[in-house]
Amino acid sequence: MQVKSGAWALLGVMLVAGFHGQRVQGQTGNVVHYTTTIDNVKYLFATAEPVARLKSGDILDTNTLDCFGNALRKPGDTLSMSKGDNPLAGPFLVEGAEPGDTLAVKILDLQVDGDTGVGAFAPGFGAINETNYTPMLHAPLPERVWFYHIDHAANTASFKALDSDFSVKIPMHPFFGCIGVAPANGEARSSVVPAEFGGNMDSPEASAGNTVYFPVNVKGGLFYIGDGHAAMGDGEVAGTAIEVPLKARVQLSVIKGRTIAWPQFENDDAIMTVGAYRPLDDAVRIAFTELVHWIHKDYGLSELDAYELLSQVARIHLNEMVDPNYVVVASVEKKYLPAKKK
Amino acid sequence: MQVKSGAWALLGVMLVAGFHGQRVQGQTGNVVHYTTTIDNVKYLFATAEPVARLKSGDILDTNTLDCFGNALRKPGDTLSMSKGDNPLAGPFLVEGAEPGDTLAVKILDLQVDGDTGVGAFAPGFGAINETNYTPMLHAPLPERVWFYHIDHAANTASFKALDSDFSVKIPMHPFFGCIGVAPANGEARSSVVPAEFGGNMDSPEASAGNTVYFPVNVKGGLFYIGDGHAAMGDGEVAGTAIEVPLKARVQLSVIKGRTIAWPQFENDDAIMTVGAYRPLDDAVRIAFTELVHWIHKDYGLSELDAYELLSQVARIHLNEMVDPNYVVVASVEKKYLPAKKK
Amino acid sequence: MQVKSGAWALLGVMLVAGFHGQRVQGQTGNVVHYTTTIDNVKYLFATAEPVARLKSGDILDTNTLDCFGNALRKPGDTLSMSKGDNPLAGPFLVEGAEPGDTLAVKILDLQVDGDTGVGAFAPGFGAINETNYTPMLHAPLPERVWFYHIDHAANTASFKALDSDFSVKIPMHPFFGCIGVAPANGEARSSVVPAEFGGNMDSPEASAGNTVYFPVNVKGGLFYIGDGHAAMGDGEVAGTAIEVPLKARVQLSVIKGRTIAWPQFENDDAIMTVGAYRPLDDAVRIAFTELVHWIHKDYGLSELDAYELLSQVARIHLNEMVDPNYVVVASVEKKYLPAKKK
Amino acid sequence: MQVKSGAWALLGVMLVAGFHGQRVQGQTGNVVHYTTTIDNVKYLFATAEPVARLKSGDILDTNTLDCFGNALRKPGDTLSMSKGDNPLAGPFLVEGAEPGDTLAVKILDLQVDGDTGVGAFAPGFGAINETNYTPMLHAPLPERVWFYHIDHAANTASFKALDSDFSVKIPMHPFFGCIGVAPANGEARSSVVPAEFGGNMDSPEASAGNTVYFPVNVKGGLFYIGDGHAAMGDGEVAGTAIEVPLKARVQLSVIKGRTIAWPQFENDDAIMTVGAYRPLDDAVRIAFTELVHWIHKDYGLSELDAYELLSQVARIHLNEMVDPNYVVVASVEKKYLPAKKK
Repeated sequence: MQVKSGAWALLGVMLVAGFHGQRVQGQTGNVVHYTTTIDNVKYLFATAEPVARLKSGDILDTNTLDCFGNALRKPGDTLSMSKGDNPLAGPFLVEGAEPGDTLAVKILDLQVDGDTGVGAFAPGFGAINETNYTPMLHAPLPERVWFYHIDHAANTASFKALDSDFSVKIPMHPFFGCIGVAPANGEARSSVVPAEFGGNMDSPEASAGNTVYFPVNVKGGLFYIGDGHAAMGDGEVAGTAIEVPLKARVQLSVIKGRTIAWPQFENDDAIMTVGAYRPLDDAVRIAFTELVHWIHKDYGLSELDAYELLSQVARIHLNEMVDPNYVVVASVEKKYLPAKKK
Repeated sequence: MQVKSGAWALLGVMLVAGFHGQRVQGQTGNVVHYTTTIDNVKYLFATAEPVARLKSGDILDTNTLDCFGNALRKPGDTLSMSKGDNPLAGPFLVEGAEPGDTLAVKILDLQVDGDTGVGAFAPGFGAINETNYTPMLHAPLPERVWFYHIDHAANTASFKALDSDFSVKIPMHPFFGCIGVAPANGEARSSVVPAEFGGNMDSPEASAGNTVYFPVNVKGGLFYIGDGHAAMGDGEVAGTAIEVPLKARVQLSVIKGRTIAWPQFENDDAIMTVGAYRPLDDAVRIAFTELVHWIHKDYGLSELDAYELLSQVARIHLNEMVDPNYVVVASVEKKYLPAKKK
Repeated sequence: MQVKSGAWALLGVMLVAGFHGQRVQGQTGNVVHYTTTIDNVKYLFATAEPVARLKSGDILDTNTLDCFGNALRKPGDTLSMSKGDNPLAGPFLVEGAEPGDTLAVKILDLQVDGDTGVGAFAPGFGAINETNYTPMLHAPLPERVWFYHIDHAANTASFKALDSDFSVKIPMHPFFGCIGVAPANGEARSSVVPAEFGGNMDSPEASAGNTVYFPVNVKGGLFYIGDGHAAMGDGEVAGTAIEVPLKARVQLSVIKGRTIAWPQFENDDAIMTVGAYRPLDDAVRIAFTELVHWIHKDYGLSELDAYELLSQVARIHLNEMVDPNYVVVASVEKKYLPAKKK
Repeated sequence: MQVKSGAWALLGVMLVAGFHGQRVQGQTGNVVHYTTTIDNVKYLFATAEPVARLKSGDILDTNTLDCFGNALRKPGDTLSMSKGDNPLAGPFLVEGAEPGDTLAVKILDLQVDGDTGVGAFAPGFGAINETNYTPMLHAPLPERVWFYHIDHAANTASFKALDSDFSVKIPMHPFFGCIGVAPANGEARSSVVPAEFGGNMDSPEASAGNTVYFPVNVKGGLFYIGDGHAAMGDGEVAGTAIEVPLKARVQLSVIKGRTIAWPQFENDDAIMTVGAYRPLDDAVRIAFTELVHWIHKDYGLSELDAYELLSQVARIHLNEMVDPNYVVVASVEKKYLPAKKK
């Protein structure tokens, strides 16, 4: 991974949290380097000792392990080799973040870290097989693992069928499966769960060029990332994406006095809201009530006009229907909205 | 509406079903003209007397009324002026279609018929308000009607806010909200319902360039269309699209010996399956089991390989979450599949 | 089946609908006899030619076939021997019933007709196996059929395990699985479906001593019954009850000017409302909004007081979670309510 | 509250956790007294410092505050006076409990502690109003609080309507709304959530005479109780029961080597399983797969025979449909099962 732009050039180095976390001094927009390994990952979105501290506006330059802790490397490897699902880098504390604020995470750069991606039938996951939360009397699907060769130059990952000779290249769109903050009310949630704090959202929107907003629930926000995906279909229907380690650069900023209830995405073209619950019906309801409220508050349409307009131009992206909560992103292009209120 | 290509030029005319239905003679691929009016529409997908008969391969050239029977024309008009929801053109009988066959409907051309589209809060419909099937103790939303000016040259429909001065142009993508056949087992279903027979699917995929497949449940198939939309957001969240009359040309063909359980779409680039049920979770499950089976049967991947591949490249389009059943289209681009089996 | 009380003694006989339907003349409260056979059953709740006509207050004395048309009689018989699911007796026309009225069906007597009950894994049905509407990639459960010996004197049906020697006697509580009227808006619905018109509700509340209310959607109401059950657990989880033919006596009365949206039950002790939809969440919502409205309208509590009171004393009976819609009965004992308004 | 039987008579006293926790010495079956106050309650099911330690077989004699921390005492008091929802007594450590074991909680005695119960529309809760997880554009219901007078001699709580003069007495059935243990995998969950660890199950089955089983997820189990209810209707539809403080006596025992995935109940007559998830459909699926497995394992019926038998004799109790997860109890009377395997 290369630092691409110079605004946050490396001016100096200061240890913050042991030998892993390094802080570039002097101004906001500085770069904090942190190296994630299997020995310093977490498996919870929770209030915990930060591994590094950033100022609002600083850039975090780090890496993440894949959802199996990088344990499956070659045909014959099995899910039992994983020490835990979705090991997380973090938590990263952002100075000045207080409950009631919003944490903005601008994703600057994401690169697949390595040459292999993994897909697998993970026990308890899947949209059209019996699972932990939609159990049936049928036997689970047999364990199967697919390895995807990553071609960095071509920006593709190759699917190879297990039961035939077929193979096909899939364009890569790297994103974080897990991205979120410490939950509210002292809760600690498994890194397989998406909810109000973000978490295992499996949102392809968590990719370079987009900004994600999270509610700040605890002092410092306590930001986590992990579970990189090289590509994923809508719904992540078989239970995993093309699971990969990532190298990442994200900018963390505190927005004082803006309070949100659920994660949001934004880029130059669109505003997007997240609903993470079950059934999908309720995930959709959460995302759309949030979107109507956002349009009403920031763009000035009445709620009923916003509702009607969304009926004609909204987009719904079903991110995943396999985790303990299901995730839906509702969005509208800004070109359909009035100018933003000052 | 103009007949655009000459292959099915008008060679002759024969009355089939009174003065409304006219059949171009002599060969398959001929054009059957039929004029739909408020006096000959139906409000059920059901076994009924056909209004016209076509040979497999014939082209139906007709028009449809909007979901309010074209009753709302100007500000001040109210929903009570509509004689019924979703008046349908049809049924159209296709000779030779027998239960167990598939009816292929190639949508050749769709044009908005008129200068006005309508959106409204329809009682009992809506994704984030209480409805007939998700009732609550809250009072219903107030009736509101929006009129959209259609600009044919620019191919846009204009939204005008009711509570402010804001207006915005929306690109048009005309499609049939209602498209389907007589149901199986002698059922007759309201034209507001989508299900195995198609019906009120509100699928933007039912647009020019795509082919829709339906199970043939009764002799002759008995095809219906209506409920034109000039444009619609995913989910049709407020309960209506930009509701318009349409002029349409579709080609109806019988595929003997191919049996399907749910509607499907296809074009040069993709295969698509429909799930129409509640909750959305089950609509997704229907669409994806159908898609896995289709890939396995016609493209030769094992079911488990197909499942994994879809986890990386499938697309899910939530058509609507407001009708008595919810509609999801799952799809995969053909470029990700093996060559089709002969 | 014997006529037990003399108030409606047989004064005379008149043929109404061929040799099957016999009407006792002279006054309301008379008895109409009708014999149901595999040759005169229906498989739809629909507007159809009545098989007998009754006056409001008349008693219908008839029989029903089991859900398999009485086709499975002994070990080795298979589901393929059934000519169709849920054959219905009817329709029975009640004179004077008009859309907007309510049809009251008082169930006077129900007796199991025969010595054998049947349970089976029916394809597409079941709460914890993959089904038509919750499909999965797993293979369906294998077909299995259980025969239950009926002991009329002891009022029990005996379960005998297929995979061991275990057997146990189950107390009988006979009720109609199917009971309903012609649907609104010209719809015709399969006899496996429960909805606003009643239908395949699988409600143990449809038993002797209770009155069922249905919306009248068409002239004459057009009442149907069938699908007798000797006993059934909550949820009918494996897809069938102890399926039996029944002998039945029910009194049909028209309540002019009372309009209801969903079926209701009532007896001396309780009022009960039906919600029939998916997911269960929505079935519960339907039943409870109906119950709050009923209490408010007939017993005078404010809606919010009624809501709070139900939170403390309501009962919910999950009838079935296996049919195309799921059925919930919400109820409250009258002893918890104010005196009924005059 | 009186200690009713002498087997665990007070032989001596030892301080365990400051002045609140007192341990009766000498043998299992001894009584540990603990006094719960607003100053020592918790609001999380989590791994935390135990407030008292018990041996397997010991009896815990304690009290709980109501769901509002006993803050609402009289008309005019508002929900804003509550310091937090569902304050919990605990955690109580049971020596020898290890992950993979089962904790058995025998509820020996429960008494309402005081003369007043409270019901309220709590923001975000309710089955037929918009909530946090089924949000809509409608305004929330207005805050309302009902006070119930407790008559200990008559064992009733009195409902008094707010909008009329109506009042009615409701028989009391005291139970714990919250009962559970520290979750698995290091999670910490709000005391408003029910899930695999028990929690805010709002199960009337958590009453005197029944035993509840929980999976042991952490060393010592770490047991919590709270949220007493004097009575509650099925579904707890308006969001609260008759909320009361309780005095309680429960016996805590470790069952080594028995591993369960979800809470279970048992008494002399029945075995019962808990499903806690959304939608209700999935809660029912969880409860029934657990029940089939339990019958198969401990009573020896094949899974398919158990499934069929449950279809005829199972009971489903919808505990609540208002908390972040919905809770269903599936049960079967032991009289319908083979003798328990040794």
